[in-house]
Amino acid sequence: MADSKPLLSRDGDPMAAEALLRDVFGIVVDEIIWKGTSASEKCHYSIKKGAAFLGLGTDSVRVVKADERGKMIPEDLERQISLAEAEGAVPFLVIATSGTTVLGAFDPLEAIADVCQRHGLWMHVDAAWGGSVLLSQTHRHLLDGIQRADSVAWNPHKLLTAGLQCSALLLQDTSNLLKHCHGSQASYLFQQDKFYDVALDTGDKVVQCGRRVDCLKLWLMWKAQGGQGLECRIDQAFALTRYLVKEMKKREGFELVMEPEFVNVCFWFVPPSLRGKQESPDYSERLAKVAPVLKERMVKEGSMMIGYQPHGTKGNFFRMVVANPALTRADMDFLLNELERLGQDL
Amino acid sequence: MADSKPLLSRDGDPMAAEALLRDVFGIVVDEIIWKGTSASEKCHYSIKKGAAFLGLGTDSVRVVKADERGKMIPEDLERQISLAEAEGAVPFLVIATSGTTVLGAFDPLEAIADVCQRHGLWMHVDAAWGGSVLLSQTHRHLLDGIQRADSVAWNPHKLLTAGLQCSALLLQDTSNLLKHCHGSQASYLFQQDKFYDVALDTGDKVVQCGRRVDCLKLWLMWKAQGGQGLECRIDQAFALTRYLVKEMKKREGFELVMEPEFVNVCFWFVPPSLRGKQESPDYSERLAKVAPVLKERMVKEGSMMIGYQPHGTKGNFFRMVVANPALTRADMDFLLNELERLGQDL
Repeated sequence: MADSKPLLSRDGDPMAAEALLRDVFGIVVDEIIWKGTSASEKCHYSIKKGAAFLGLGTDSVRVVKADERGKMIPEDLERQISLAEAEGAVPFLVIATSGTTVLGAFDPLEAIADVCQRHGLWMHVDAAWGGSVLLSQTHRHLLDGIQRADSVAWNPHKLLTAGLQCSALLLQDTSNLLKHCHGSQASYLFQQDKFYDVALDTGDKVVQCGRRVDCLKLWLMWKAQGGQGLECRIDQAFALTRYLVKEMKKREGFELVMEPEFVNVCFWFVPPSLRGKQESPDYSERLAKVAPVLKERMVKEGSMMIGYQPHGTKGNFFRMVVANPALTRADMDFLLNELERLGQDL
Repeated sequence: MADSKPLLSRDGDPMAAEALLRDVFGIVVDEIIWKGTSASEKCHYSIKKGAAFLGLGTDSVRVVKADERGKMIPEDLERQISLAEAEGAVPFLVIATSGTTVLGAFDPLEAIADVCQRHGLWMHVDAAWGGSVLLSQTHRHLLDGIQRADSVAWNPHKLLTAGLQCSALLLQDTSNLLKHCHGSQASYLFQQDKFYDVALDTGDKVVQCGRRVDCLKLWLMWKAQGGQGLECRIDQAFALTRYLVKEMKKREGFELVMEPEFVNVCFWFVPPSLRGKQESPDYSERLAKVAPVLKERMVKEGSMMIGYQPHGTKGNFFRMVVANPALTRADMDFLLNELERLGQDL
């Protein structure tokens, strides 16, 4: 915390910052990320799960509006903070997202950091999906402002394709905060009378007890590929995404949900029987049924795996995520051809 | 819960059972196990960590006395429940341990189950370490009464030596409790319109989002070794433990902390300069400094790795855990010879 502003409790009573930080940082290790009080409506479901988990309750999470591209609207964040304060609550934490799950949206971090600074709030960035973009000189501008965050969560097991699980929590704090939050000084496991510097023992800093040395995967990969090698992967993923979108636009049966700014390509496959029927009243309803059928067919054929989901008022659409560094243009062409083949009778 | 008895809140107000079970089961997946309100003084440190984590606070954990072998004393459990009730608290959960970390003690589960039944309390057994003993017809009596538990935590990555991490939570409940507790129905990840039975999708039941398929390791190992193969591993570990203890007793420089009933062999190595000095006032203090020195030497030589720790009023002693199925009698002999060699000048 930049200052010692008290934090939010469920009933509005200020609690000591330390006690709640203990909770807030309790759950940040690995995949679970606590994201109350304010987070955008496109944020990851783990936010509410974390709130339930830590005993704060899902009601203490305020949802901030996102624009049509899925980016948090800083003006609404400001508004939600005022509303919370008017209700007697004490906001303490803002969660921005760099790379939302479905649309791949990047929240405007500079503007959000301004709001956090003005109100003395802890700024956490969920960069689980988009954090790897920082390795690319060309694309890292998407995360401008992340250097102002108090904490950042990043999953190298996502875009960098490290083996599951490989998750990092990065903190501005240099006072060994995790140790202060989580250390339980179990003397039968974390002996203090060792012959080396016990500050190197990280076991007592984390939530779990027995766990794999997940950071080794990242270290090995980074050593093997170098910063430049990893940068190439990111740039190639962006380039291949652009190629896929360009090819998609040349074909009749594909409709983009929006122009991607990241490597999430969200689109509908419009089968022959629905083409040109955009004006018919049951178009959306019928279109939403296409993706599950195609998914079933591709799974049964064993040819591809592309996720689909509904999103807000939009019915089921595919979300092709271009991340695997082994992907080529030929794979993108195959994807389009295969969808046309699988859906030609629909 | 056997009945709908209200659960404990920090300030003694009864809360709906569902709300708290949500928390209680929130954290049971993988290594973290919540173990309030009552647990023995020899229980794992994750109990208090879990209490802090879930927002219940460590003060809501009551520590039950253990006997000199590290086993929970059921009479003291009964007493702690009465004390808690007298203070206006509402106990809801008892955690027994089958195989404590240091001494390898098994709590008397039948007697604990009787107490839980009498008071309508949820009985959880932390069998992370000792649960694998159930696979042995010869030794499973150590866990008599576990069939009466409401929930059991078991780590096949410990005694069965499955790769880290492989943890199971077993429930009496058959109503899909974890789904009810954890399900967050994130429609963008857990689609309901799939072509197969979505009850097979377990992702929404657990705390984490992206995670490895840890259960596969157990399944593969069980398929490869069979029940009998795994039983052999357990029986062999017990047999090798007995061999080690027998050989230890033949030698001058080894003092057992207690006769092991499991595969934890707790002992001091008494170096030549301390032998026969048991009566000297600084004996314990000097003995406690031996294990760290020997540990440093074995690590630097790269010959062995044996853990040590203090425990209660007892100074540092070694804890040899005989679990690896590749261990032989020759390894046990090596261990004893090596300790004598490394400690001959002390």
